[in-house]
Amino acid sequence: MKLLEDRIKSEGRILPGNVLKVSSFLNHQLDPTLIMELGKEFARLFEKEAPNKILTIETSGIPIAFATGAALKIPVIFAKKHKTSNIFGDAYNSVVHSYTHGCDYTVIVEREFLNQGDRVLLIDDFLANGKALDGLLEIVEQAGAKAVGAGIAIEKGFQEGGARLRSNGLKVESLAIIDHMDENSITFLE
Amino acid sequence: MKLLEDRIKSEGRILPGNVLKVSSFLNHQLDPTLIMELGKEFARLFEKEAPNKILTIETSGIPIAFATGAALKIPVIFAKKHKTSNIFGDAYNSVVHSYTHGCDYTVIVEREFLNQGDRVLLIDDFLANGKALDGLLEIVEQAGAKAVGAGIAIEKGFQEGGARLRSNGLKVESLAIIDHMDENSITFLE
Repeated sequence: MKLLEDRIKSEGRILPGNVLKVSSFLNHQLDPTLIMELGKEFARLFEKEAPNKILTIETSGIPIAFATGAALKIPVIFAKKHKTSNIFGDAYNSVVHSYTHGCDYTVIVEREFLNQGDRVLLIDDFLANGKALDGLLEIVEQAGAKAVGAGIAIEKGFQEGGARLRSNGLKVESLAIIDHMDENSITFLE
Repeated sequence: MKLLEDRIKSEGRILPGNVLKVSSFLNHQLDPTLIMELGKEFARLFEKEAPNKILTIETSGIPIAFATGAALKIPVIFAKKHKTSNIFGDAYNSVVHSYTHGCDYTVIVEREFLNQGDRVLLIDDFLANGKALDGLLEIVEQAGAKAVGAGIAIEKGFQEGGARLRSNGLKVESLAIIDHMDENSITFLE
């Protein structure tokens, strides 16, 4: 999506460790007009899959998931992060490893919000190793629901998550796929 | 705002300690159609104050702030919560006490996103003691910016935050003000 790629090129900053900082428009500071367009694009890309719920993970997935939910007029659930791995008796839960932060955390979704028969569209801001999506997929499975696809704003195409999830049969649509980035330049897959 | 009050009456649950749980539409699970309407209402209420930025606090303030930013077509900044009180040299920061969680946390906003001359509209989901708004006001002051008002989805009118902030001269607009609640009923101020 050219709109997003252009914005990444003009405002993105690449930090050591292949961290792409887009905090001027996608997290910390949000550009609602841009993000509403991303939401409309995800709605277009996944309309045929007929999702009835969107699932994302706090914090930075929320605005994009919300915009997609506004476009599709369906509820948005955000999985909550916990640092402890207490037993959450009344909640679906899974453990996610964060490479960015070098730690594990538990994500939970209360049982009342996901059920058998739900057709769930996963939305997140970044896809790299795919560990966050793995965690959300596990929660969808615990609920007996079906994941109908995953919409990602920015995929790091040089990391393995996207290829692995697609080869497992998940429909993954990323609005910008980074082919290569270093401190001087960033290139996208066509 | 009748739309919100009706939803609170039908889906809100009151837990011990005067905690109002609205996680089926305002946090955890979000109703984007409802929340977009709340955003439009805040845009209408604060249009005259000509805000150029919105400031909220993660996590549950984000959707409402985002919807307001989408209606006003201005950027939305969310202050990030940290459990440590490290020195954040490059960020505005303040310490907030959470009565709900019984702990202090630090909220930060990177300096590049708030500047002198900014007219900042604060948005949050709940107002009770007003400690979160106090923290955001302190950050606005550190930036040399001006807080032009605060838009709140649900105010607990029986707690002191709203009265205190209004008497300090802040324009506070709450879409639903709870007069009284217990396990059996909830009433709103007209």
